[in-house]
Amino acid sequence: MRTLVDLNADAGESFGRWRLGDDERLIPLVTSVNVACGWHAGDAATMRRSVRIARESGVAVGAHPGFPDLTGFGRRALAMSPQEAADACLYQFGALRAIADHLHTPVTHVKPHGALYGLTLRDEAVAEAITEAVLSAAPDVRVVLLAGPTAERLAERGFPVVREAFADLDYDDAGHIIIEPDPQAKDPQRCADQAVAVLEGEVTSVNGKPIEVDADTICLHGDRPNAVEVATAVRERFASEGVQVAPMADVVRKHRG
Amino acid sequence: MRTLVDLNADAGESFGRWRLGDDERLIPLVTSVNVACGWHAGDAATMRRSVRIARESGVAVGAHPGFPDLTGFGRRALAMSPQEAADACLYQFGALRAIADHLHTPVTHVKPHGALYGLTLRDEAVAEAITEAVLSAAPDVRVVLLAGPTAERLAERGFPVVREAFADLDYDDAGHIIIEPDPQAKDPQRCADQAVAVLEGEVTSVNGKPIEVDADTICLHGDRPNAVEVATAVRERFASEGVQVAPMADVVRKHRG
Amino acid sequence: MRTLVDLNADAGESFGRWRLGDDERLIPLVTSVNVACGWHAGDAATMRRSVRIARESGVAVGAHPGFPDLTGFGRRALAMSPQEAADACLYQFGALRAIADHLHTPVTHVKPHGALYGLTLRDEAVAEAITEAVLSAAPDVRVVLLAGPTAERLAERGFPVVREAFADLDYDDAGHIIIEPDPQAKDPQRCADQAVAVLEGEVTSVNGKPIEVDADTICLHGDRPNAVEVATAVRERFASEGVQVAPMADVVRKHRG
Amino acid sequence: MRTLVDLNADAGESFGRWRLGDDERLIPLVTSVNVACGWHAGDAATMRRSVRIARESGVAVGAHPGFPDLTGFGRRALAMSPQEAADACLYQFGALRAIADHLHTPVTHVKPHGALYGLTLRDEAVAEAITEAVLSAAPDVRVVLLAGPTAERLAERGFPVVREAFADLDYDDAGHIIIEPDPQAKDPQRCADQAVAVLEGEVTSVNGKPIEVDADTICLHGDRPNAVEVATAVRERFASEGVQVAPMADVVRKHRG
Repeated sequence: MRTLVDLNADAGESFGRWRLGDDERLIPLVTSVNVACGWHAGDAATMRRSVRIARESGVAVGAHPGFPDLTGFGRRALAMSPQEAADACLYQFGALRAIADHLHTPVTHVKPHGALYGLTLRDEAVAEAITEAVLSAAPDVRVVLLAGPTAERLAERGFPVVREAFADLDYDDAGHIIIEPDPQAKDPQRCADQAVAVLEGEVTSVNGKPIEVDADTICLHGDRPNAVEVATAVRERFASEGVQVAPMADVVRKHRG
Repeated sequence: MRTLVDLNADAGESFGRWRLGDDERLIPLVTSVNVACGWHAGDAATMRRSVRIARESGVAVGAHPGFPDLTGFGRRALAMSPQEAADACLYQFGALRAIADHLHTPVTHVKPHGALYGLTLRDEAVAEAITEAVLSAAPDVRVVLLAGPTAERLAERGFPVVREAFADLDYDDAGHIIIEPDPQAKDPQRCADQAVAVLEGEVTSVNGKPIEVDADTICLHGDRPNAVEVATAVRERFASEGVQVAPMADVVRKHRG
Repeated sequence: MRTLVDLNADAGESFGRWRLGDDERLIPLVTSVNVACGWHAGDAATMRRSVRIARESGVAVGAHPGFPDLTGFGRRALAMSPQEAADACLYQFGALRAIADHLHTPVTHVKPHGALYGLTLRDEAVAEAITEAVLSAAPDVRVVLLAGPTAERLAERGFPVVREAFADLDYDDAGHIIIEPDPQAKDPQRCADQAVAVLEGEVTSVNGKPIEVDADTICLHGDRPNAVEVATAVRERFASEGVQVAPMADVVRKHRG
Repeated sequence: MRTLVDLNADAGESFGRWRLGDDERLIPLVTSVNVACGWHAGDAATMRRSVRIARESGVAVGAHPGFPDLTGFGRRALAMSPQEAADACLYQFGALRAIADHLHTPVTHVKPHGALYGLTLRDEAVAEAITEAVLSAAPDVRVVLLAGPTAERLAERGFPVVREAFADLDYDDAGHIIIEPDPQAKDPQRCADQAVAVLEGEVTSVNGKPIEVDADTICLHGDRPNAVEVATAVRERFASEGVQVAPMADVVRKHRG
C-alpha cells in the first residue's frame, strides 16, 4: 500500500453573486486545489479569492479549465476538436496564472473539468493536445488525467502526466468515473474506504468488478454538499493508516523518480 | 519633431464564425499589435492566429482586454470597480500570454480596449489598479494609456506606462479621444496628417482647440474598413518624413531613458 | 392609508448549478413575482421552475429583465441606448412568456432589474422606450417603474405603468432607491414599518428627509438571506393593519380606475 | 414532380459588431426565413432588423434556436437532455416572437439550428420534446425537421411537423445532412439541381446512394459566401421548371391537407 499521496479538490466554483462550496474550510484540508477558471464556474474575483486561500494554507494551486458552459457547469459534453480543447485549456490556465502571479503564487498543474475531463478519456488526441499545449507553454506545469490507459500511454511517450483517482465518485466497469451532474452528499466513511482502496491499487466498479489504479493524487469535489466532512474523514483515515499527504509534484517525484 | 515612434493596431477582433479586420495584411504594417482577449472579441483560436501573424512579422504582441460584452464589442461603459477592472485585465492578459507562450512569443504590453480604456480616463483609480496589477504579475509588461494627465501622474509616481496618441480618432477639447461604436472608413491622408501632428507634439480637437500630446505610440483601429489603407498611408508618410518605427519598448527606452 | 397593495418579489435568481433564494417558500408569500430571464440570472430551467411555483401559488408572473452581466448580477450600470434597453426587455420578456405559455400561465408585467431599473430613473428616454416596446408587443402587459417623477410623467402621457415602492431598500434624498450589490439580512420589522409607511404615502430617506410615494406595489428582494422572514413580517403586519394584498393588475384597477 | 414548395434560408446570423450574410438581398429571395435568436448568433438588434426585412418582403418569419455557443456558432454538438433542448427552443422562440410582436409580424415556425438540428436526428426524444413544447406554447407554430424517419414518425403521431430538405448541403448514406462548420461557396447550378431533385422526391448521397425525400421546404444557408447567388439560381430554375414558391404553412396545407 502506498503511504504518500496528494489529496486534491475541485474548488473555486462560485460565480459572481452565487456561492458554491465552502472553500475557506475545504481548501486547507487538501494538498492541491483545482481552481475553476471562468468558463464553467469561477469569475476573476473568485479565482483571486481561491488562490489567496490556497496560498495562506500552503496548498498547491492548479487550473481547472472547463467547457464554456456556465448553464451546464461544464458537465455537458461539447464536441471540441483537440486543437479547440488545447486552446481552451491554455486560455483558462493562463488567466489563472496571471491572477496567481499577481499574488506571487505558482500554478503547478492543469486538470480538465467535468465533461472536458471526460473527453480526454474518450478521445486520446484531446488528452495529448492538452498535455502538449500546456507543456510547451509552461514546462514545469503538470496535466492531471485519470489514472488509466490514456495516462499510461502518454506517460510512456514521455509526457509527465499526473495520474488521478477518485474517492467520491463511482467507477464503471471500463474504469471510467461516473460524473454526477448535481453531486449529492456521500457517506464520508465510504469515501475514505475508497481512498484507501486507491492507495492499495484497486477500486471496485459499481458492478463489483475490480479496477486497477496507480494514482498519485486523489480527488474530492468541492461542490458536494458535505465536501468538508468527506475531506475530514479521508484525512483522518490517512492519519490512522499512516498515509502522508503532499502536493502532487512531491508525490510524483517520489513515486515516479 | 519626434523621429521615432511605435505604430500600434487593435487587431485580432474576429470571433468564432465572424471575421473582422484584415489581420494578415494589417499586422505586418505596424510595430505593435493589441490582441483582443475573448471578452469583447477574439476567441482562443483567433488569439492564436493573431499571435502567429505577429510573430512571423516581427511585431510586438500586447493584450487588449475589454469589458465582458461581446454584443457591444466592449464599447459600452460598464461600471466596474478598480479591483474588478484590474482582475479583468489580469485574466485576459494571462489568457493571451499562455497562448503566446505556447508559440514562444512574449507579450510586451497591455492596453485596455474601448470603454474600459475610456474608464481609465474618467477614473484614475481604475488606471492605477490596472497598472499596479499588471506590473505585480509581470514586471516587464507595460500598460498603455492615453498620453495625457492620467498617464503623466502615474508616470511621475513611478509606474512605467506607455503614452499613446491616435491617428484615426478625433479628440475633444478635454484631450480625450472620441470613441466610435462602429468605425467608418477615414481619409488615410488625414490620419497620416494627424500622426505627424502627434510627433510634433500637438493635435487639434474637433472644435479647433490645440491639444498637447507627448506620445510613444500611435494607434490605428483594425476594425475600420480601410484600416490597411490608413496604416499604409501613415507608414508612407513616416518614410517620407524620416520617421522610424519600432516596438513601444524600444521607443520608451529612447524617449524616456 | 391605503388598504390594498400588491406585494412583489424578485425571484427565480438561481442559475444552472447555483442556487439563490428560497423560491419555494418566498413566492407563495407574495402576490406578484418578477422572474429573472437569463441575462443576469435565471436560466431556462430555473424560469420554468419559478413559473410553476407561481402558478401553483396563484401568484402573478412577471418578467425581470436585466443587463447581460451574469458576473455582476445585472447590478453594474451598462451604457445602453434606449433602443438597446427596449430590445433587451422585449427579448427577455418574450423568452419568459414562451416558457409561461408552455405552462399555460400568463405573464402580467415587466420590471427591469438592478442597474437597468436604475437606468430608467436616470434616463427617461430609456423608461419610455421600454414601456413603449412592451406595450406594443403585448398590450395587456404592464411595466413596473419606481413610484416617482418618471413614472408620473409616463402615466400622464397615457402609458399604463405600475408604480413601485420598496420595503427592504433605503431611499436617498432624491427619492431614488439605493441598490445593494450584495444584499445582507435586514430587520424584518423595520421592513414591515417601511411597507406601512409606503401605504401611508411617505417614506424617510437615509438622511431623514420625507419622500412622498404613491405606489401600487411593494417590492422585496429574493436574494436577501432572510427574504422569507422579511416577507412573513410584512404579511403579518398587513394582516394586523387590515391591509389586503392582490396582484398588481387588480390593485391598479382599484387605485387608478 | 412537386410544383409548390417553400424556400427557406437561415439568416439573421450577424452578432453585434460582426456582420455575416447579406440579409438585405437574401431574405427577399426566399419565402421563409429562420432568424438566429441570440444563443449561437443574432443579438436582439439583429433579430429586429431581420424581422423588419422579412416583413417588408412578405417573407414568413421563423425562430432558429441553437446551442448556447457563440464561439462555435452552434455547430458543435452539446449533450443536452430533451427537456433542456425544449427549454432552449422555447426561450429563443419566445425572445424572437416578442420582438416580432413589437413589429406586428407573426412567427410561423421554429427550426433548430446546426448541431441542435443534428441532435433531433440522433435523439428522437429531443425532436419530440421540442415539438411538444413549441406546440403547447404556440399551437399555430410549426417545427421544421429534416424530411426523414424522425419527422415521419412524429407526423404519424399527430405532430404537425414541416419536412425539410437541403439544396446546398450533401447527404450521407443514412439520409442525414453533412453539416459544414464553415460553409464555402458552392456551385449555384449544382444547388439548383439538388433543389429540383428534392421536388422529384430523390436526392443522391455523397456515395451515390439514392435517398428518398418528401419535403415541404428547401433550405439554403445564409452564411455561405455566395448565398445570394445560390438563392437566385434556385429561384430561376424554379421559374423555368414552373415551380411555385410559398411560405411553408401554405405548402403544408396543400401537400398534407
